[in-house]
Amino acid sequence: MPVLVMKFGGTSVATLDRIKRAAKRVGVEVAKGYDVIVIVSAMSGETNKLVGFVNDTSQLYDAREYDAVVSSGENVTAGLMALTLQEMDVPARSWQGWQVPLQTNSAHSAARIEAIPTDNINAKFAEGMKVAVVAGFQGISPEGRITTLGRGGSDTTAVAFAAAFGAERCDIYTDVDGIYTTDPRIASKARKLDKIAFEEMLELASLGAKVLQTRSVELAMRFKVKLRVLSSFEEMDDAAGTMVCDEEEIVESKAVNGVAYSRDEAKMTLISVADRPGIAAAIFGPLSEAGVNVDMIVQNISEEGRTDMTFSCPTDQVARAEKAMADAKAAGDINFHDLVADTDVAKISIVGIGMRSHAGVAAKMFATLRDEGINIKVITTSEIKVSVLIDRKYMELAVQSLHDAFELEKA
Amino acid sequence: MPVLVMKFGGTSVATLDRIKRAAKRVGVEVAKGYDVIVIVSAMSGETNKLVGFVNDTSQLYDAREYDAVVSSGENVTAGLMALTLQEMDVPARSWQGWQVPLQTNSAHSAARIEAIPTDNINAKFAEGMKVAVVAGFQGISPEGRITTLGRGGSDTTAVAFAAAFGAERCDIYTDVDGIYTTDPRIASKARKLDKIAFEEMLELASLGAKVLQTRSVELAMRFKVKLRVLSSFEEMDDAAGTMVCDEEEIVESKAVNGVAYSRDEAKMTLISVADRPGIAAAIFGPLSEAGVNVDMIVQNISEEGRTDMTFSCPTDQVARAEKAMADAKAAGDINFHDLVADTDVAKISIVGIGMRSHAGVAAKMFATLRDEGINIKVITTSEIKVSVLIDRKYMELAVQSLHDAFELEKA
Repeated sequence: MPVLVMKFGGTSVATLDRIKRAAKRVGVEVAKGYDVIVIVSAMSGETNKLVGFVNDTSQLYDAREYDAVVSSGENVTAGLMALTLQEMDVPARSWQGWQVPLQTNSAHSAARIEAIPTDNINAKFAEGMKVAVVAGFQGISPEGRITTLGRGGSDTTAVAFAAAFGAERCDIYTDVDGIYTTDPRIASKARKLDKIAFEEMLELASLGAKVLQTRSVELAMRFKVKLRVLSSFEEMDDAAGTMVCDEEEIVESKAVNGVAYSRDEAKMTLISVADRPGIAAAIFGPLSEAGVNVDMIVQNISEEGRTDMTFSCPTDQVARAEKAMADAKAAGDINFHDLVADTDVAKISIVGIGMRSHAGVAAKMFATLRDEGINIKVITTSEIKVSVLIDRKYMELAVQSLHDAFELEKA
Repeated sequence: MPVLVMKFGGTSVATLDRIKRAAKRVGVEVAKGYDVIVIVSAMSGETNKLVGFVNDTSQLYDAREYDAVVSSGENVTAGLMALTLQEMDVPARSWQGWQVPLQTNSAHSAARIEAIPTDNINAKFAEGMKVAVVAGFQGISPEGRITTLGRGGSDTTAVAFAAAFGAERCDIYTDVDGIYTTDPRIASKARKLDKIAFEEMLELASLGAKVLQTRSVELAMRFKVKLRVLSSFEEMDDAAGTMVCDEEEIVESKAVNGVAYSRDEAKMTLISVADRPGIAAAIFGPLSEAGVNVDMIVQNISEEGRTDMTFSCPTDQVARAEKAMADAKAAGDINFHDLVADTDVAKISIVGIGMRSHAGVAAKMFATLRDEGINIKVITTSEIKVSVLIDRKYMELAVQSLHDAFELEKA
């Protein structure tokens, strides 16, 4: 039997009625002849509640205990989903991560999947079971402790199962009906994409589009898993969603396929750094060790042996970055006049695999922003992306004008 | 190191503050030099919530999925308790049932413990860990599925661990400060017992005293586990509680040590049953198969080949009993005129190991009830117990007058 993986996020299993609704969709796929693996998240709100318990108990918590506590929400949903399917006369049973066993490394609360043995579940499929319901987000370490895969980890669980079982497709059911050219709450002309390339999805995911966990997209790309994002709230027939696929499957690509934004970015500038060989390593080494995720980096032209170094990082890591820099200065590893943090910025990105073959995309972006009177503070580019840091007050305007300039509303 | 088992019930871990309070008690025992095994229940209300989810999902649910869902509450508390202890600098870690592994049979939702390997936890004690926090109520079946031990199963988990690890004592922390001669809400003169014999506790537990699960007492009796019931809400020094122990340890025992009651009992009478050899088997066989827990049985003197048969069972099993009897009648297995259910009754019991050596205890009970004008409907006796069924409206009066008659307020 062909295998289909269906993943339901927290809002899709938030109540018993929604679990029933999701189970009906599973039943439709079973009726088509699929053996289905269902990956479930915790009921929405549950994981936050459990994380709150842990944080209120301990500031510097033992990540192994965090995982043991936080993984329990998915176990509840998995059992309830199996019961709901049985109630519909669909043969089903639940698996918790350790029962599969979904083997991970020991990096608790951000573990990476190492193996998913298929014999256990395939034996049950052979016996006539139609649906394996698996608790998402969790696995077991080599030491036999429960691990979790980090926020959004159920997406990664789903894609990994699809890869392990050679599934025909991996359907991610969520509360939006697909991937849009940009956030419809900001640009009303935003258009749902029928298809998007893995690379584009990867950029959008890491730029803050919250639909899919970045690692799940990486994994899908690596193992050529056909990934579909669709809404569990629409009628089944209308829920075409967005296919995330190989760029070869996208016949003609526009230069730009999406505009992303992030308001959680801060701009940090080290003023008057003594410029010498190795200075970048002396700055970004300590930041990395302190767990600061540096995104963009710009170095000004050096004058009289001194330079300004600007970088961006998530807003909630600013304090950590400041401490790391102060410590490095105190230790004599680096020398700078001042560190200025600007948290009143936003990052705007345009993404498209067509950029590789279309010239002048970045120039058009800069001109569009200039025409709106928006000053660009930092620029970074990749092969299929251009990102800029701007004043946060212009964020919506920038997204809308770029969406218009690149005519993203047109298919 | 000597091992101590401490069990905290749902009300004792209902909030993070209460978990902290419980952890402090654990810390005190660790400071005395014990290696401690802590057994935790789910936060109070959690298990009911999960059971509600299952019942709302499915009427005739798969008990394996029920267990997978319902066991998750204990996992949360175990992790939080371990974190709280770590926060107090007490080396601790959590174990879920399958990690121990606490091996049970496959009788899901009422599983029996078959083995508790000690190597895993003892190895950690040898490494310097001071507290093993174990999720109560749950185990793993030979098929690798999660099992639960039935309501109150965490008591049984605690006693089984105490037996397996040869613990010096098993302390059951709950929301009452010990075992009383009767329910203080009904008889204000009720007195806390310092000691009670296993056999007495067993009778009281099966008679509806909700402090300890019956099976936990059986197990403690069989493996000579010193069991103590005490309150987690009192100051540590005052919490002497009640020791449940071998009757040899109780120097001088009174004839009666406790008065128990149950309002959840119904009296069922089969009117005019055709009396023949094997008729009892023909009646109680089908009742047993239907899962009806028959308690008391009385058969009237037979007249002209017909008799009345009276039995009692829990109120919520009346419908099941009626169906089983109607089916047996329809199948021609038994013949009776009518089945009359009286749910307006209560069961009153007096319990005491001293009954074995004191004569006239039952007679005194009957005389006491007669003096209050209370009619006795059914009587059963065991070696250390006399139970009667009476009209429910006299329940409180019966308890109070028996408590007075046997002078239970006196130590």
